[in-house]
Amino acid sequence: MDTAEFRRRGKEMVDYVADYLENIEKRQVYPDVEPGYLRSLIPEEAPEQPETYEDVVKDIERVVMPGITHWHSPYFFAYFPTANSFPAILADMLSGAIGCVGFSWAASPACTELETVMLDWLGKMLNLPEEFLAGTKGKGGGVIQGTASEATLVALLAARCRMVKRILSDDPERPEADIISKLVAYSSDQAHSSVERAGLIGGVRMRKIPSDSKFSVRGEALRKVLEEDKAAGLIPFYFCATLGTTPSCAFDYITEIGPICNTEGIWMHIDAAYAGSAFICPEFRPLLDGVEFADSFNFNPHKWLLVNFDCSTMWVKNRTDIIAAFKMDPLYLKHDHQESGLVTDYRHWQIPLGRRFRSLKIWFVFRMYGLRGLQDHIRKHVALAKEFEALVRVDERFQISAEVVLGLVCFRLKGSNDLNEALLKRINSARRIHLVPCQLSGRFVLRFAVCARTTESRHVQEAWAHITQLATELLRQFPQ
Amino acid sequence: MDTAEFRRRGKEMVDYVADYLENIEKRQVYPDVEPGYLRSLIPEEAPEQPETYEDVVKDIERVVMPGITHWHSPYFFAYFPTANSFPAILADMLSGAIGCVGFSWAASPACTELETVMLDWLGKMLNLPEEFLAGTKGKGGGVIQGTASEATLVALLAARCRMVKRILSDDPERPEADIISKLVAYSSDQAHSSVERAGLIGGVRMRKIPSDSKFSVRGEALRKVLEEDKAAGLIPFYFCATLGTTPSCAFDYITEIGPICNTEGIWMHIDAAYAGSAFICPEFRPLLDGVEFADSFNFNPHKWLLVNFDCSTMWVKNRTDIIAAFKMDPLYLKHDHQESGLVTDYRHWQIPLGRRFRSLKIWFVFRMYGLRGLQDHIRKHVALAKEFEALVRVDERFQISAEVVLGLVCFRLKGSNDLNEALLKRINSARRIHLVPCQLSGRFVLRFAVCARTTESRHVQEAWAHITQLATELLRQFPQ
Repeated sequence: MDTAEFRRRGKEMVDYVADYLENIEKRQVYPDVEPGYLRSLIPEEAPEQPETYEDVVKDIERVVMPGITHWHSPYFFAYFPTANSFPAILADMLSGAIGCVGFSWAASPACTELETVMLDWLGKMLNLPEEFLAGTKGKGGGVIQGTASEATLVALLAARCRMVKRILSDDPERPEADIISKLVAYSSDQAHSSVERAGLIGGVRMRKIPSDSKFSVRGEALRKVLEEDKAAGLIPFYFCATLGTTPSCAFDYITEIGPICNTEGIWMHIDAAYAGSAFICPEFRPLLDGVEFADSFNFNPHKWLLVNFDCSTMWVKNRTDIIAAFKMDPLYLKHDHQESGLVTDYRHWQIPLGRRFRSLKIWFVFRMYGLRGLQDHIRKHVALAKEFEALVRVDERFQISAEVVLGLVCFRLKGSNDLNEALLKRINSARRIHLVPCQLSGRFVLRFAVCARTTESRHVQEAWAHITQLATELLRQFPQ
Repeated sequence: MDTAEFRRRGKEMVDYVADYLENIEKRQVYPDVEPGYLRSLIPEEAPEQPETYEDVVKDIERVVMPGITHWHSPYFFAYFPTANSFPAILADMLSGAIGCVGFSWAASPACTELETVMLDWLGKMLNLPEEFLAGTKGKGGGVIQGTASEATLVALLAARCRMVKRILSDDPERPEADIISKLVAYSSDQAHSSVERAGLIGGVRMRKIPSDSKFSVRGEALRKVLEEDKAAGLIPFYFCATLGTTPSCAFDYITEIGPICNTEGIWMHIDAAYAGSAFICPEFRPLLDGVEFADSFNFNPHKWLLVNFDCSTMWVKNRTDIIAAFKMDPLYLKHDHQESGLVTDYRHWQIPLGRRFRSLKIWFVFRMYGLRGLQDHIRKHVALAKEFEALVRVDERFQISAEVVLGLVCFRLKGSNDLNEALLKRINSARRIHLVPCQLSGRFVLRFAVCARTTESRHVQEAWAHITQLATELLRQFPQ
């Protein structure tokens, strides 16, 4: 494909993308296909000779679309949102063309520097303490990770390294393996599975702190476990607090937990993957109070801040803590400016070496929406969730299972888990909307998350009418 | 930005991208900026109100471009190539619009299934042993990772898990921490820094095996170290072989190393990040002989196979080895088809949870180029490297520092390291071409890697004329 053909095909693709997003609600939100559906639709081997672009493009509707779960349909209420906006798509086109690999400052200075400044912009929007900003001479700063899972892992590894060094400085003869075998990391029993996975990868013990009746960890619960573990000779080193848990969007009490962690020398990482975006609104910012006690903080603009996946923003108070855990400097990656305080080599901040130019997406989106536009987006979703909550509350057959703080509503039929499982099965089989479940205090619960940028009141109302109709049919067949 | 404006702006962006790539050689390949240049060019905070698209777009040339290292300029000969092609850019636009997060089959079946089939296509192009393919009922299969660093780490963690389980099955009382403290991983002393980093992350000992005079690890060298380590009570569990090392594109002798690893129960992972793409050409395929002994194999189509970053393809013989190391199954990620043999939930194969729809890029590129087109691309780059090598060889002031097998030429002035460092500094300061160095047997060496898709003989000739002119000036000032 030469440049002239790309000009033509690129413009056709822009129209395809616009058509897809403009008409997405006419598509069935969840696909009908059975596992293995795709293999038989395409050849078993790559072609020897080039095919035409027409051949390729006609297969999008024939092969790909029938197997797509349409995350940007206004009838998609599953998981948490993933962002999608036109400015982000435009920025990604530019990023693809520049196609630099920004592992070091020298590998493309703009790629590194725009990222640092965008993370400062966003940090200010969140009113993060000054210590987390890079500024021109701060010790902290931000980085774009691929996902919150990676941020959780990076923080855990940095914490592990910091604690091992601390103990070795008092007791230089103690074998490192012995120290690591005694380390213990903590999170809420409501924390995302990726936190447990980070412990597994880092080869450290992981303990879950019991959450309270609102699914939040209190300081007292943490303190109790810490005392037990220290008495048993273990070394607490890391607590991953969650603001906005995946099952029910609950918030750990970081104002209570933070001071304990600081006193005990435990690294506090905050995972606010979903909820973090809301903190740009002054009315939700109090949920982040206590961040001043954290060593690191992370959330996903690629969830709820209109920046397409992947863009998971992470800040640390002390960037040397992170860099120390990963730094390797082979000659082929060295460059002249390396030792300057102004230079950031982001490869020392993350698991992968290479990285795309992702800050362009943030820059385009923040400028095209403005802070006000982004706040409007958050507030609209929260209002839609409240609207759905109100509908659930007036139907006596149903109950709300957790406080509705942001854009997620956890609800269920009063009755058995089997009944609720049956309801969810009917909802997802009907394919008009898409939901996923969670478990709260042993109960099977349905999660209704406002996801798409284009979700409006009418979609929420339709969804509720549909759910209640299916519930009525179900209860008629299986009276409680 | 509404859909109508996106249609207009998207088409303008297509033209900008086309113009950028069409005229890239007129831009200075390496930027002039000093660290911190960008911060003063843009406001300190995000705007409160939306800006216009014109405002944003005019800043691309004012703010971003002055700080770009143009990886796709035909005068870029640094590091290794990163891929860029029009079909890949088109596929990425589509991927951005679909914007699904393919952590499980159900989260978007097409995203998972196209990936599995594309990895089979590519596996067949490489003539990988059947065991590495997923087919419809194989035990192996492929996955797209973000980078080779992640593949190296994933393989190391899977190997760690497999060895711990194996030892526990014989000796169930042995503490896991004790086992891990005895584990030892190996790689060549020429291996990429990310291998050592994987050991650091996994909390295991790492030993480097001395390479021979051609910078390759021989079986005998590995065997010697294994004997020492076993005698010292250590447990060898992982060898990361490199095909195409970063400094000089050397190849470990996997036909010798593989049988040793198999006998000793050591996981052999092959990192062919750069060189792997060449194996689609029958004349280079013998370099992959011995892959049949490997447990996992990885290379980066995003380097040399025209699929834009990120796309690092990894195959394993036994996918349960990988899955066992990572599996976590919370209710909100469960789905009906989970237990079917046909279903792959790729989140169990990787470090992050979320993942973009990256196989679209492979599908578009392979179909639009065909196997022949891709082979032509590889062969052209190798021929250009040979052309450069021939130029170096006829200039008696210079020497070739390592065998030229693919698209990389390692060369230096006969003389001191300081002299060569001075030459490189002049080359990179002149900004007409861009190179990075490496160290081989204590010598400072210049690396000339053919990188851009659009590099032609005239660029190589110009580069050499430029280098020799700078060398002549240097030698006049500092006669040897």
